[in-house]
Amino acid sequence: MSGGALKEAAVDLLDDYAARIDDDRLEAWLDLFAEDCCYRIVPRENHDQDLPLPIMLCPNKNVLRDRIVSLRHANKYNLHYDRHIISGVRVRPEGDGARIEANFVVYQTSLEGESQLFAVGRYRDRVRAEGGTLVFVDKLVILDSFAVPHLIATPL
Amino acid sequence: MSGGALKEAAVDLLDDYAARIDDDRLEAWLDLFAEDCCYRIVPRENHDQDLPLPIMLCPNKNVLRDRIVSLRHANKYNLHYDRHIISGVRVRPEGDGARIEANFVVYQTSLEGESQLFAVGRYRDRVRAEGGTLVFVDKLVILDSFAVPHLIATPL
Amino acid sequence: MSGGALKEAAVDLLDDYAARIDDDRLEAWLDLFAEDCCYRIVPRENHDQDLPLPIMLCPNKNVLRDRIVSLRHANKYNLHYDRHIISGVRVRPEGDGARIEANFVVYQTSLEGESQLFAVGRYRDRVRAEGGTLVFVDKLVILDSFAVPHLIATPL
Repeated sequence: MSGGALKEAAVDLLDDYAARIDDDRLEAWLDLFAEDCCYRIVPRENHDQDLPLPIMLCPNKNVLRDRIVSLRHANKYNLHYDRHIISGVRVRPEGDGARIEANFVVYQTSLEGESQLFAVGRYRDRVRAEGGTLVFVDKLVILDSFAVPHLIATPL
Repeated sequence: MSGGALKEAAVDLLDDYAARIDDDRLEAWLDLFAEDCCYRIVPRENHDQDLPLPIMLCPNKNVLRDRIVSLRHANKYNLHYDRHIISGVRVRPEGDGARIEANFVVYQTSLEGESQLFAVGRYRDRVRAEGGTLVFVDKLVILDSFAVPHLIATPL
Repeated sequence: MSGGALKEAAVDLLDDYAARIDDDRLEAWLDLFAEDCCYRIVPRENHDQDLPLPIMLCPNKNVLRDRIVSLRHANKYNLHYDRHIISGVRVRPEGDGARIEANFVVYQTSLEGESQLFAVGRYRDRVRAEGGTLVFVDKLVILDSFAVPHLIATPL
């Protein structure tokens, strides 16, 4: 892909990522990941000091699938709607894919109708072209806070 | 319009929409709507269950005009500044126009100087080319919460 | 630059601006300004009434440099992480540069792990091409609130 097309495809991928979480289409959200993907949530404080201990780690797509299945069948806590805002997307071509960075904010709205700030941070991802489309190989969610107000049920 | 030009025009339309509300240029904001437009605010919970009961319904541009006139002359409550953030714009060509979706957040700042989250949700709009520019035919504001902290005075 | 290239360069400049503050690379952030730049933070209420009294005024780059040096050596208050979200970027070519406007939100996360809304408002900037890249000549931060919850330590 050319530079412009790559940036556009990367922005589309992030927008799809957000929309599928926000629409509660988590099974379709899984389609955005490669089989050998790694999904991690790490607090910024740890990340800045090279302390890799994640808040959440899914080292391949099967673990990610399992998490969504469990969410569908077992989760009774923190029922809510998600809403993502993404800004400042940067794309750097690398090999057969790219590195993507972006700022994000997630709002959650409880079933009682209260909307609130849930998390802010930065995505630092690696993506690869597979079958003419981009997929996440590495999804790194760096949270500005080590503490989030509720249980992380749905993905960030 | 080509796909790229349509997306650009749609993003410009949404940015104009937000800027004219945030700058309190609501009369100019009306210019972004077709005469046969429909403006609705619907809570997500209702929308997901196909319960179309809106929080606000303006079934044509005259009703929308009336609302702005009334806001200018009668409104004494919830005086504030608005600020919109829009993210994840998606555009799908349709007929002589397009369908647009985007996530939004609105912040309000009171005259006492307190800024706070007012509403989060999703736009799901239909737009049409009129005189070389895009206008809203259908503006659907899907609110994540059925409850907003204050009276909805200015448009979302 | 063509209209499309200018818009792209302007968006890149704003994204760089935000990323360098958020990553605490404030010395690199200075590189985005011309020597004869002016950096101002003005409450919207004042700006709307042509009362130019700023909350902060740095009338050239040396004053801005001084502020960053002082921040590095003396600041012991309001230690935090910043996170910017920028939306609705508009670019209007002017002379050898452009005028840029955009909405912004800044979140701050304290070292205790609490993330909160810090400021919302609008950038109204003048930029100039210098050595093949854009730099800020005039950075005007219009805050929706005259009051911010903490000391403004890092730039907005």
